[in-house]
Order: sequence, then structure tokens, then C-alpha cells
Amino acid sequence: MIRFNNDYSEICHERILKRMSELSDTQVGGYGLDEYCDEARGIIKNLIGQDNADVHFLVGGTQANMTVIASVLRPHQCAVCASSGHINVHETGAVESTGHKVMSIPTENGKLTGDIVRNIHVAHWADFSHEHIAQPKLVYISDSTEIGTIYKKDELIDIYAACRDCGMYLFLDGARLGYALACEENDLDIKTIAENTDVFYIGGTKCGAMFGEAVVILNDDLKEDFRYIIKQKGGMLAKGWLLGIQFTELLKDGLYFELAKHADDMALKINKAVRESGYFFYSESPANQQFVIFPDSLLEKLNEKYVFEYQARVDETHSAERICTSWATKEENVDMLIADIKKS
Amino acid sequence: MIRFNNDYSEICHERILKRMSELSDTQVGGYGLDEYCDEARGIIKNLIGQDNADVHFLVGGTQANMTVIASVLRPHQCAVCASSGHINVHETGAVESTGHKVMSIPTENGKLTGDIVRNIHVAHWADFSHEHIAQPKLVYISDSTEIGTIYKKDELIDIYAACRDCGMYLFLDGARLGYALACEENDLDIKTIAENTDVFYIGGTKCGAMFGEAVVILNDDLKEDFRYIIKQKGGMLAKGWLLGIQFTELLKDGLYFELAKHADDMALKINKAVRESGYFFYSESPANQQFVIFPDSLLEKLNEKYVFEYQARVDETHSAERICTSWATKEENVDMLIADIKKS
Amino acid sequence: MIRFNNDYSEICHERILKRMSELSDTQVGGYGLDEYCDEARGIIKNLIGQDNADVHFLVGGTQANMTVIASVLRPHQCAVCASSGHINVHETGAVESTGHKVMSIPTENGKLTGDIVRNIHVAHWADFSHEHIAQPKLVYISDSTEIGTIYKKDELIDIYAACRDCGMYLFLDGARLGYALACEENDLDIKTIAENTDVFYIGGTKCGAMFGEAVVILNDDLKEDFRYIIKQKGGMLAKGWLLGIQFTELLKDGLYFELAKHADDMALKINKAVRESGYFFYSESPANQQFVIFPDSLLEKLNEKYVFEYQARVDETHSAERICTSWATKEENVDMLIADIKKS
Amino acid sequence: MIRFNNDYSEICHERILKRMSELSDTQVGGYGLDEYCDEARGIIKNLIGQDNADVHFLVGGTQANMTVIASVLRPHQCAVCASSGHINVHETGAVESTGHKVMSIPTENGKLTGDIVRNIHVAHWADFSHEHIAQPKLVYISDSTEIGTIYKKDELIDIYAACRDCGMYLFLDGARLGYALACEENDLDIKTIAENTDVFYIGGTKCGAMFGEAVVILNDDLKEDFRYIIKQKGGMLAKGWLLGIQFTELLKDGLYFELAKHADDMALKINKAVRESGYFFYSESPANQQFVIFPDSLLEKLNEKYVFEYQARVDETHSAERICTSWATKEENVDMLIADIKKS
Repeated sequence: MIRFNNDYSEICHERILKRMSELSDTQVGGYGLDEYCDEARGIIKNLIGQDNADVHFLVGGTQANMTVIASVLRPHQCAVCASSGHINVHETGAVESTGHKVMSIPTENGKLTGDIVRNIHVAHWADFSHEHIAQPKLVYISDSTEIGTIYKKDELIDIYAACRDCGMYLFLDGARLGYALACEENDLDIKTIAENTDVFYIGGTKCGAMFGEAVVILNDDLKEDFRYIIKQKGGMLAKGWLLGIQFTELLKDGLYFELAKHADDMALKINKAVRESGYFFYSESPANQQFVIFPDSLLEKLNEKYVFEYQARVDETHSAERICTSWATKEENVDMLIADIKKS
Repeated sequence: MIRFNNDYSEICHERILKRMSELSDTQVGGYGLDEYCDEARGIIKNLIGQDNADVHFLVGGTQANMTVIASVLRPHQCAVCASSGHINVHETGAVESTGHKVMSIPTENGKLTGDIVRNIHVAHWADFSHEHIAQPKLVYISDSTEIGTIYKKDELIDIYAACRDCGMYLFLDGARLGYALACEENDLDIKTIAENTDVFYIGGTKCGAMFGEAVVILNDDLKEDFRYIIKQKGGMLAKGWLLGIQFTELLKDGLYFELAKHADDMALKINKAVRESGYFFYSESPANQQFVIFPDSLLEKLNEKYVFEYQARVDETHSAERICTSWATKEENVDMLIADIKKS
Repeated sequence: MIRFNNDYSEICHERILKRMSELSDTQVGGYGLDEYCDEARGIIKNLIGQDNADVHFLVGGTQANMTVIASVLRPHQCAVCASSGHINVHETGAVESTGHKVMSIPTENGKLTGDIVRNIHVAHWADFSHEHIAQPKLVYISDSTEIGTIYKKDELIDIYAACRDCGMYLFLDGARLGYALACEENDLDIKTIAENTDVFYIGGTKCGAMFGEAVVILNDDLKEDFRYIIKQKGGMLAKGWLLGIQFTELLKDGLYFELAKHADDMALKINKAVRESGYFFYSESPANQQFVIFPDSLLEKLNEKYVFEYQARVDETHSAERICTSWATKEENVDMLIADIKKS
Repeated sequence: MIRFNNDYSEICHERILKRMSELSDTQVGGYGLDEYCDEARGIIKNLIGQDNADVHFLVGGTQANMTVIASVLRPHQCAVCASSGHINVHETGAVESTGHKVMSIPTENGKLTGDIVRNIHVAHWADFSHEHIAQPKLVYISDSTEIGTIYKKDELIDIYAACRDCGMYLFLDGARLGYALACEENDLDIKTIAENTDVFYIGGTKCGAMFGEAVVILNDDLKEDFRYIIKQKGGMLAKGWLLGIQFTELLKDGLYFELAKHADDMALKINKAVRESGYFFYSESPANQQFVIFPDSLLEKLNEKYVFEYQARVDETHSAERICTSWATKEENVDMLIADIKKS
């Protein structure tokens, strides 16, 4: 079976394992306070053009999300996100388990806007009973989003301006940041992201690393004691340098973005073939996740060779499926899939 | 100013203060383990026709809701409610502060149904990734609801059957239970409620008491150690007998339902007048909360004499307001309000 | 049976019930935003000599403790208290239920000192692994303490100076503040307390009120959004003016301290009699709680007429018991008890 | 510098990296539901002789501890441990952050006993106010302990019998289980551990793995929905098979215990040398952690070549340090250290 169900089906890019093998005998101090993490921190600060940023390495995305949000919010404050947001639908209530409501906003494209933020702010404070309502204080967005869409430069600038005006923090979940930045439609760059968020992370797990997310804190107010929170929430890896090594390998010479571009190219190829074959999309994505609507007859055949991720039943004879490419996707497999789609 | 903004604008029915005065010298043991609480417990068990029920007295509604839900759920489980549910909108994230997600379901009338419960259950367990999603385990409903509607007998029986089929608990918030049971449209009685819920409470604060909610646990699985949870969540009143006294006074001879009927009658009178005057309703309620849509011109005049609770802006010249009667509402004030509405 | 087991065995001072009866018909706005609460706030600000203080009324002590601590601390921070501290032993882990460790320090007299605070601070920050340890940030003390001791003026000044030096907050639980301030040994006054804490409360429940604790926030950094936290933790009484009325009645003309003085005088009488009869004390208290060690033979007789609170088994023939007087203790009962002790 | 400060200073045993390299191209399903995890589960079930056990793989120790405890306890229940227990001192209040008190018991050797458990149980339930006290429900022990001691077979059997008698759960933290089981003094085996605990884990991070702890749930009552809790607490590794691979490599042919034995042998060698040189121990340990008391003069010299972990200042001229060996410790370095100690 060939897996197109997600972007974390292979261990990691070979360069990472090679580097780990080279260092397997070396003794290093624990918990991320080592030279390998420092090297990766330096690369990231250089990449984003901000020397004062704090960079922390966590193991996974749910962990990163709940650790950041728990660190930032006071008990009565809540995180605002699109209804499709990962913290709202696929983290088993991790944010709530740290005591905070997630205020979810229905959207068509999985994205929030400056206007949405401003409206939430005004509605909260205009309510005479606002003390009876969880206070919106942090805006959570993902790029690319859970349904494959991406933020354009002006959209991010607008939403961050709204957050600043409203006294709210902007947190960008970059679990699939590579795939967002590498795709054709994108006009954002990582420096602009760093200038227009309070905290974001660069996803490793889904973009070529064995595991790991690099949390970048830009806003000074959010920096204090973050390592305590990482430790308390179970996210402080004993052998922290494993994370430093990975981000160094991925980021020191642009490998991260090359890998992501490959995935996006493969996805575009599939997108084109699906379109040409007359099939429709469940949502439109320019990046590595393609949400297609296929008839059952086609799916039955494809499922003999390929694994997709089921999304929803669309009508009596059609289902929506996610076809996900990754840094590791082989073009020959993509070509075979395309042939099989067209054959139908 | 005459207050129609809520049903807790006066201290309490005079009988309660009288009884407190009689007992002001009497020494009693603390924390609800006294003879006055036992007397009230006996009256309630008799009323619901279930000798094995556990009855606990808490001070307020938010406290009752979060204490019950925190006691019942394991960390990964969530409470399901209508989007208009009190736990979702007016408790500053109290349930989430105990670690649990609130899964809110948009409804037109503020009520859940057996079908909604079954669909949620099926959707959860059918999802291959259900472990990544908060597990729906408790259904929270209110009677009367936050928008004034009430549950009919067959609706409650249906929703409880669904809960049992799905392995979920049914919790009924009865902050306004009196007003629900006393209104004309109602066909439910408190015995049927006790037979068709796992836990519910009889609201005191909004129905003539100084404060207090009587939580009734029917399901044996939910009884263990509940008093620990009350204490931990700050709800164990030192002078617990104050609660026993109040519920005894209200329930020993039907005063509770008389008071509620008075409020409902007053609300119906207002409802009729509003209707006759050609105004519309924001939501239809047979009980003590009337959600009316008034033109600004009328509101401007009424607001000189009366306090309502603002709900929403309906259009450029109309707003929705809640007119709330209570056990203490004076008929002369209702008549004056009606005259003022009709005059317009 | 005559109760000496605690100081909350009677409903409340008669003046409170009288005032409630006078106001039973009056309509008032909810949630503590009313003129009666404002009046009480004014009296308290005047009493402490600080116009900028924020005053909030909560229902009970456990609720006040956990609400204050949850409001003040970030997730990784802990509260430091004496091992005998109420939050450590008699609140069913309420503080921990809001996510915070309670760091308990063994003491002989139930009191912390400036030196203890400084040592904890130095030890924490000197530890290379301090991020792996809950960060001490709030110091919790009680006056009078859970074992009946009181803080002297210089002791409080010293501990607050230590807190400020160490960047920690000082929170004084005043559930029995009246009894502390009214006793003969005391040299503290409420103005000095307000000048030497960041937040404290004036206890009502144990000092003549029906219920209620007046939380006074002195430190500006701790004031923001406190009402949200009250609501979230279930402590916002719907009929908030009931609290305003009580504190006004108790504090407007010194009744609070008169009642406390009476209790302390009664306790001193008992203390003297116990001493004269040759019995020992489990701990030495100048205030309304006397911790005596009685032989079983004496206890057996006394238990026929009086209720005490059992503390501990001291040896094979002796137990320690708490004899607690209150604002409501009748001198005739005290005299009878003394006679019965001396008779033995 | 040669590190003796902990047992997680090298990446992992070479066999693990080799196996990862072999599988780097292979596509595998996520979240621990794969054949590699299943293989490791099979090996572990075989090793403990219990086919019905549930085996889950988590990333780190703090995460494993808080996930297990949060899953097992209801909100009012607490975990009992020795004061030196890892959950009490080195996890930044992680257990408390999930809402549960940690009840710490001072001990001389870092170990709890059946008698301690029984006494805690009796004391709790004998207290008339037990509902005001966090309920002891889970006993947490470590083997080897945080101060290097180990549980003997009869000690574990005794403590588990006490737990069953008292209705409490026994949870054994095996972060250093290998080092405990491999040392000379030990008479326990892993089957006996599985028969005498409700849940325990086999530590990988400190015993040769890159990371990972294998949680084994024996008690059926504790099995339900554990994967939800792992996900919620951020411990579900996307590429879960990385954990399966590691435990398979370590456990399939006894490598785990060989590596541990090597570390213990090295520690014993150091222990003997320290003893022969006339130095004392801060605590006595038969396993891989040696807690020595060295004069400053010696430490000054050793610190030029070796890294230890500082424990405490013992007197004006001596400090206690932890010398920790591991699976990766080179005998030549141990010999050099011994020579340097003896030289002094």
C-alpha cells in the first residue's frame, strides 16, 4: 500500500539520521541547554531576522499548542480559532484540559480575519455581563490551515494589526508552515510572519523531522518562565539536543523549504489531474493537502493500492478524502496515482 | 425603577427570613450534615418519589454546574449542550476551568433532542481518530432553557433514552425548574424528571430562595464522594443548614410551585399584551422569561420606568429585550407595564 | 448539647437578619454591582485607610483562597504555606484543583517568617534545575492561624519585606481576622495589615456573618479582571447585595471587633481555668481557639454536655481537643464548662 | 569533560539508530497503532507474563507520570509518594497542574512501605472531616528511587497488599527500572513487578533509548480510554513506531538488562573506591546512582575533568554529589575517575 494519508509516514530525512549517527557517542547536557540547540536557535533567529526572539524546541504539535496557550493566558481567558482549528477538533480537548475555553468561529476557508477579531473584541466588551463570559485574549491560526488553505501576506498583517488594536495575542501554528511557505500561491515569508505574530512555531514533525516543533516567542511579555511551562506540561525532552540537531539539519541550508516545495509540487500535480478528470474538491488547497471528492466506484479501486484519509460522506455515492503529499513522496507513486485516477 | 431584568432582584420569600429569625439562636453542626438539611432532603425525596436519591445543597448555579460536571467526567470527556446553554455562554468558562471541553450544538429553540445525542454518539465512535477528539459523555440541558422554552414530557423521555443507549449521562439544570413546571404548556412533573435524568437540580436562587440549588443525584454511579468535590470546588457552605431551611420552606407545602405559577401567569399576561399590541418575539416562551422585540421609540419610553435585559440588536430600529417576571413580581407593576406598552 | 466545636454554629448576628428583613421587598441589581456592596466597600476602604483598594465579596473561605491564588499565579507557580495552613490540610486540594502546587513548610507555631521566605527564594533560584521545580511566588499566611496563634506587627512587616525583596506576593487569610485583632496579645491593626500584604480578606462566616469573606486587593498588579475569576470559580453570588449588607452591619460601627473581643474574652477565661486545673495545651493560643489536652476520663464526662472538635490522640489516656468560642458564645455556658472542668 | 552527571548524556544504543536507518524509507501508520509498536507490545507482555496487559509508549517520564495519574484519579483524589519522589520535586508541579494534590511522606531511604500506606488510609477515613481532605487513592513509588535505593521483593509485595486492602492503586515509576533490576542486591524480577502493581513503566530514556517510556497497565479498571488521555496530555507521538522500534531493540534479546548491568557494575566499582578511600555516602545505593560526600579540595580537582550533579552542601568543607553511570559509561573513564579519587 502506498500512503497518501498524511505527511508523517516516514521516519525523517536521511541527513538527520546520519547526523545522529555521527554524534551517537558524544556526551551532551540535557533539556535543551546545549550547543546543538543553541546552533539551531541561531539559525532560526537569523532566518527570521530577530535576534531577541526566544526559541524553544518541543516534541509535538498538540504539546506545543497547549504549552503556549497555557503559558500565555490567565484562567478566565480563552483562545479564539476557526472551527476547523486543530486545537478545536483534533487535540482531545488539550487546551481545555489546561483550563481554557476554545472559542470557535465557523468559517468557510479555515481562516480568521482582522474583522472577525475586531468583532469578537467589540462584542465582548460591549456586553454589560462580559465578566460572565470567557475573555477572548489569544487568536490561534494555522498556516497552512487544517483544510489546506494559506494566509496571504496582507491577511496576516491585517489580523495582527487587529490583535494589537484589541489587546490580543496572535499565535500561529506552523505545523505545516513549510508547505504553506513553499507553495506557488504564497506571498508570505518567515520574516513577515515573525513581524506579525506574538508567537509561532516552525513544524518539524510533518516537514521532514523525526519529531519536533520550534516555538518562536517574539513578544517580550510572553517570554518569562516559558521553560517551566514546557517542563510542567511534559514537553521538555531529556535529550534535547536531538531537537537541535534536527532543526539545524533542516534549516541551515534551506533543506526544509526544498522538501516542502517538493511536496507542494507533487500535490499540484495531483490537483491538476483531479481537476482534469472532472472531479471536484471538498476544499481548495494550494499546498500539500488535497481534499478531493471521489465517487465510491473510483475509491474502491484506489483503495486497493493507496491509503487516503477519509473526511466526510458527501452524498450517497461520493466521499471526501484527503490526499496528502510530503517531503518523502515519490514522484513515481504520484504518477501512478494520477494514471489510476485518469483511468477511471 | 421597576426591575423586570431578572428573577433574582429581591432577597427571598418572607417565610424564609422568618424561619431564619426563629432559628437564629440555635446551634447547628456545619457543612450540610444537619437535621434541617436532612428534613429538606426527605421532602425532596418524597417529592420525586425516589428514596435512594442523593440530595446535596449548593449555593449557586455556575457552582452546581461545574461541580456536577467535574465530578462525573474523566479528563478526556466533554459535556454536550445547546449553543445557548448557560455553561457555554454565561459561566466564564467554568466547566473548561475544570478541564473539560463544552461541545455546543446550534439549535433554534435552545433544546437538544434524542436524535442530536444519537448523531453525536455515532459520529464520535465512527471516526477512526476518535481518540484525538474529546469524548462526548454528558448531556447538559436546562428546563426552562436560557431562551425561555421548556421540555415536553416525550422530549425528555426521548433524550434520556438516547443517553442511556449511547452510554452518556443526562444532567438537567433546573435553575428555573419551578417556572418550567408551573407554566400552562408544561406536561412534565418532577417525578418524571427524576426518572429520566441521571442528575438534576431544583433551583432556589431564581425561584424564591435567598440562594441555593438542590442537586439530586439519581444514578448510583455518580454518587460516590460527591461531597469531596463540593468542598474542593468551594461550594460547601459552612452554615449548610441555611440551605436546608430554605428548601424546606419552599417545598414542604408547594410554595415553590405557587410562586413559580404566579411568575408564569404574570409573564403570560405580558405575552398576551405584547402580541395584541402587534409586537414580535425574539423567541417564544411559555414561562417567566419573555423575549420581545420592541422599537427604539417604545424602549426609550419604557426605559424611563422599567429595567429589562438587553439581548441583541435586531435591525436598525429594533432591539430584543428580556422581560423577566418572578415569584416577587407585583401584578400592579405588570398592569402598569402592559398599559405603557399598549399606549405606544 | 452545647457546641464549642467551631465558631460558625449560629446563623448570624441579629442585626444582619433585621436589616435583611427591612430590605426584603427592595429590588436590587445582581452580582455585587449594587449600592449596598458599594457602601460596604467604602466602609472597608475607610477602615484600612486605602482608597485605591479593590474590595470583592465572596461566599466562603475555601472559595476565597482558591480564587485569589488561581487569579494571581501563572501555571508553574506555587503557593507557600505552613504545613498547618488551611489550603494545605482542609480544602480537599482546592488550590491544586486550579493547577498549583502548595509548598508546605513544617512549623511549630503555624506561622511563616521572613527568613523562611528568603530561604525558599534563595534555594529555588540557586538550583541549576529550578525550571524543574514549581516556582514559589505567593506566600499564604492566616491570622489567626489554624492552630490559634497570631502574627505580631513586626512579624508581619518582616515577612512582607521578605516577599517584596523576593518578588513574591503575600496573601493573608483572615477567616478569623476579627479574633486575631481583638485578642489581648495582639499589636496589629487592620491598616498595618493592608500596608503589609498584597491581598487579604476579612472573614465574615466565622465572625458573625451568615456567610461571606471580603477580599481586599492592595497590589495594583493583582486587580485586573478579578471579577471574571470569581465568576469562573463559582463564587459570584447572584444576590450579591446580601454580602454588602452583612459587611456594612458588621463594620460600620465596630460590631465586628466587639463580637470578636467577646469570643476572645470567653476563650481566655477557659484558658485560665484549664491552666489552673493543671491541664496542658496542645498549642498555645491567645485567641478564640483553645487547643487543650484532656484525660479521657474528663472528656467522657464533658462530652455528655459539650461538643468539642477532636484534634489528635496524644497518649494512651489523653486526647487533644479544640474548644472554640465565638461571637455568639454565652458566658453562662462558658462558666458552666469551667465549673465542669474544675470539678474534675 | 567526562559526564557522570546523569544517565542520559548520549543519544542511544547503536542498534537503535541502525534499525531506524534500515526503516527510514518505510511508510508506517501513525500514533502507535502500527506493527512495530505491536511487536514491542508482544515482547513486553511475554516478558511480564501477562497477555492481558495494555502497553502504551510515551515519550518521557514527567509525561508518563502525569498522564497515568490524571487518567486514574478523580478530581478530589491525591497521589501519595515519598518526599523525594520525582513527581514531588522535579516535575514543576505537573501532577498538580492536572488538578491533583501530591501528598508527600518524609522517608530516610526514599521508599514507602505497606505500613505507611495503611496508616495514611486509616488516618484519612478515621477523620470525621475527611471530605475536607484530599483523598489518598494512588501510591507512587520509583524503582530504583530518586536517591538510588531499590525495592526488595517482599517490600513490593507488602506495599501492594496494603494498597489492595486500602482500595488504593499502586503505580511504579520505572524510569530507572533497568538499573534496579540489574544490580547485585536486587531480588525482584519484572514478572513480580507486574503481579504487584496496577500500572508501571519500563524506562527507556535513561536506559539506552533515544527517548521513551513503556507504560504497562495491569489493572483492568485503569485501561479504558487511556489513549485519549495520552493524546490530551500531549504525549502521543505522531511517528509512534519510533518507540516501538526502540523497545523492540532493547527488549527482544535482553540488551536492556545487559546495558543496565554494565552501568551498575561501573557504579559498584566507584562505590568500592569511594569507600576504600575513606569517603562517606549521602545515601546508600546499590544501583547506578552513587551519592557521595567529597571534600571541596577533592571536588575542585575532579571538576576539572568530570561533571557530577550537585546535591547539597553537607558542612563547611563538604558537598554531596551524584555520580551517575549509564549504559554508555566507558570503563576506562571509570578507572580514571577511581584513580583520581584515590590519588587525593
